[in-house]
Amino acid sequence: MFDGNSALGFCMVLAFILFSTKLLGLLFRHIGLPQVLGYIIAGIFIGPAVFGDLLGFSLIGFSGEGYAALLCLPAKDNALDIFSKIGVLLIMFSTGLETNLKELKNTGLVAVLVALLGVVVPLLLGFLISLPFGNIGLGYESAEGIYRSIFIGTILTATSVAITVSVLKELGKINTKLGTTIVSAAIIDDVIGIVLLSVVTGVAKSGAVETDNPFIAFKSTIYGTVIMIVCFFIFAVAAGFLLSKCFKWLDKRWPTTHRIPIFSLAVCFAYSWLAEEIFGVADITGAFLAGVVLSTDHRASVYTDTKVEVNTYTVFAPVFFANIGISSISFAGLDPKILLFAFLAVLMGLIGKIIGCGAIFKAFKYSWRESAIGGVGMFARGEVALIVTAAVTNSEVLGAYALGGEFMIMTVLLILISSVLTPVLLKVLYSKEKIPPSDGGGEPLKENAAANGESVKTEDIVS
Amino acid sequence: MFDGNSALGFCMVLAFILFSTKLLGLLFRHIGLPQVLGYIIAGIFIGPAVFGDLLGFSLIGFSGEGYAALLCLPAKDNALDIFSKIGVLLIMFSTGLETNLKELKNTGLVAVLVALLGVVVPLLLGFLISLPFGNIGLGYESAEGIYRSIFIGTILTATSVAITVSVLKELGKINTKLGTTIVSAAIIDDVIGIVLLSVVTGVAKSGAVETDNPFIAFKSTIYGTVIMIVCFFIFAVAAGFLLSKCFKWLDKRWPTTHRIPIFSLAVCFAYSWLAEEIFGVADITGAFLAGVVLSTDHRASVYTDTKVEVNTYTVFAPVFFANIGISSISFAGLDPKILLFAFLAVLMGLIGKIIGCGAIFKAFKYSWRESAIGGVGMFARGEVALIVTAAVTNSEVLGAYALGGEFMIMTVLLILISSVLTPVLLKVLYSKEKIPPSDGGGEPLKENAAANGESVKTEDIVS
Repeated sequence: MFDGNSALGFCMVLAFILFSTKLLGLLFRHIGLPQVLGYIIAGIFIGPAVFGDLLGFSLIGFSGEGYAALLCLPAKDNALDIFSKIGVLLIMFSTGLETNLKELKNTGLVAVLVALLGVVVPLLLGFLISLPFGNIGLGYESAEGIYRSIFIGTILTATSVAITVSVLKELGKINTKLGTTIVSAAIIDDVIGIVLLSVVTGVAKSGAVETDNPFIAFKSTIYGTVIMIVCFFIFAVAAGFLLSKCFKWLDKRWPTTHRIPIFSLAVCFAYSWLAEEIFGVADITGAFLAGVVLSTDHRASVYTDTKVEVNTYTVFAPVFFANIGISSISFAGLDPKILLFAFLAVLMGLIGKIIGCGAIFKAFKYSWRESAIGGVGMFARGEVALIVTAAVTNSEVLGAYALGGEFMIMTVLLILISSVLTPVLLKVLYSKEKIPPSDGGGEPLKENAAANGESVKTEDIVS
Repeated sequence: MFDGNSALGFCMVLAFILFSTKLLGLLFRHIGLPQVLGYIIAGIFIGPAVFGDLLGFSLIGFSGEGYAALLCLPAKDNALDIFSKIGVLLIMFSTGLETNLKELKNTGLVAVLVALLGVVVPLLLGFLISLPFGNIGLGYESAEGIYRSIFIGTILTATSVAITVSVLKELGKINTKLGTTIVSAAIIDDVIGIVLLSVVTGVAKSGAVETDNPFIAFKSTIYGTVIMIVCFFIFAVAAGFLLSKCFKWLDKRWPTTHRIPIFSLAVCFAYSWLAEEIFGVADITGAFLAGVVLSTDHRASVYTDTKVEVNTYTVFAPVFFANIGISSISFAGLDPKILLFAFLAVLMGLIGKIIGCGAIFKAFKYSWRESAIGGVGMFARGEVALIVTAAVTNSEVLGAYALGGEFMIMTVLLILISSVLTPVLLKVLYSKEKIPPSDGGGEPLKENAAANGESVKTEDIVS
């Protein structure tokens, strides 16, 4: 119906995506689920999954077959993919901008350890649960299967505290020691997750390359991969040092002018491109690091973040989430084994966080109840889990090591189940509180920039 | 160098465009010229014009020939075109949002007549000057030549008062009767220009269609074209009435939430698509009307406008202006006759505004000096002239009636010359003022929404 091959036709597709994602997103939010799930469901309906695969036609276009051609530019990297890519990069850039390094320095050892164990345990459990599933391409029988099992583990690591934050706010517990520790841990969790993803995908990539170019050959050894990752981090920080000087100067001379977010966007895209194309690190790592290095100038980064988030949440992010539904979710030929595996993996992901994070809280003399709150508070997943999944499924650079698109259903289930359980469990756990706030009155922090950062993000996603 | 065929490669191209356009834009602003000229020049350097056509390679990609393939997706309607299209639609949507209908009702007859004559005289002069230029595809010898000559006239009609406003502000004359009349006239001018463009392109299109579909056949008669244009305006207003009710309700229940600009964007794109594909009216007319109908709810429209302008000026508009330089400006094989014609047409465009607008001011008993100020104040051109030019050059729907891309140089010259002359002439004319403000003290308006709208826009473009 709409000719997505023409620029104007694509605008109509965009109108359709924006309208339907926001509508379903608001509906989902109304029933207490994250908006991103609504976005994905909207994508499933727009895409070929329901009307194309099952009923033989599509809301946009006519059939599952003709659909891609009608909606999109030529199959690979069409305009939807470009908007999705920009969406992902901007979300990660925003996450980076909100990672206030100075604040992080002040977070205690507890938060760091909570984040660390909260990454390691789900990673391990996810990896282990994947090993028996050789029949869906995971397992220990081939190098591909092992890498894919590691990717499954990696997908399970990224916490998203948006829901936890809103529940804690509602209960008036956000500024307690436990609350702020959860928020800090979730931010460190992003950093660890990104480093992990970079290393894991970098190493996986290294197997897949055949080349005469000695530089590419060097990059594709495991040794070279690790060196390049380290080099990229050094480069990012060094260039970031100079860039943040420039931005400080810009911000001092012309505060709150559009030039700052525009140049910041250019830095974000350039870092992403350099990361992936030159250093062999995932592009989202580049975008995230660009955000982190620019976050050092507080005022400019807050201003940039508000502008970037307008771009992200009014145009690009909805397309990214919808595109997951459009291109990664398919019910035709869905193996029941995948569904069984998805449920088990989700279980591992949830248990992993409760054990990993809870254990640290318990070790630091929190009560059992508080440790359980800490574990539950860390187990919600969100956008970053989707972004990591998108990075390791159907990836061209990962070649044979990439996961198939059918595993996206696991991540969607993970988000769905964790978002339903988080508020329920948190409220139950807090209702068992006997004495007036044992973890509360102690240290109500006046202004926790990290918590504020998170809450801004939450509101923006849900508004 | 960058593989614009991949999503990530395109992000790098985008980084390059954003950085270079903003840098040159700021430089141009620094020397007192409009930023858009800097954007276009950046595009010329990025594109094949300089390095490709003249030197045999391109800053992005290698040669003029291989350039398009390297930078872009397949030649027609690649990702750059999509971003450009969105840029144009958003600029027009913003312009529409800033057209405060209630304010317009209160503007006097003078402003309406100034706008009207300011459109008619340059249109006529532009048309007449084109007639002797049959050797560059204009002229009276063929239907194509006549239509193209009318398009030349149409390009000369759209005033942009951004520069005038900033000069009047600097001189403290913006809230005088003359100043507010100029600003109001410039807004009405946009409306008249849009209607004119719709009619002219609609009628031109009607010649070019061969079809068996009776509806398309009907649409392609001149009679049918006019009917469809009227129908679109009726539809736009009727649907707009319902839409603005919905938006008022949304704004009342959830003020200043992202859902409002997101749904507004969907409306903008849907109107654009419906205008062009169903009613045969230019898509920019649809975007502009979407803005106008949504502007009736003042608070929501102001909020939407601020969000839309972030999208526009940080991402999409720079790509639109750069793309003019990239794809429409070429020096190789530039006919000297085109340059001669361009200069003459620019002259007609400037003289036309001075005569047309000045005559009305004089007829309403302004002094000769004030009438000259009114004429000069209306003669600057900007983005809208570029948008109109883009709509009538190399247009597929206009077929053989479309102007060639080589006429873009005329519009660039028009903007360049008018922006250089406007501040110089205004300052000279005001310096000749003998008695203290004859046009000033009378009626200093406290709050002129139209003027504010314009000034917001100006600041946004230049910030």
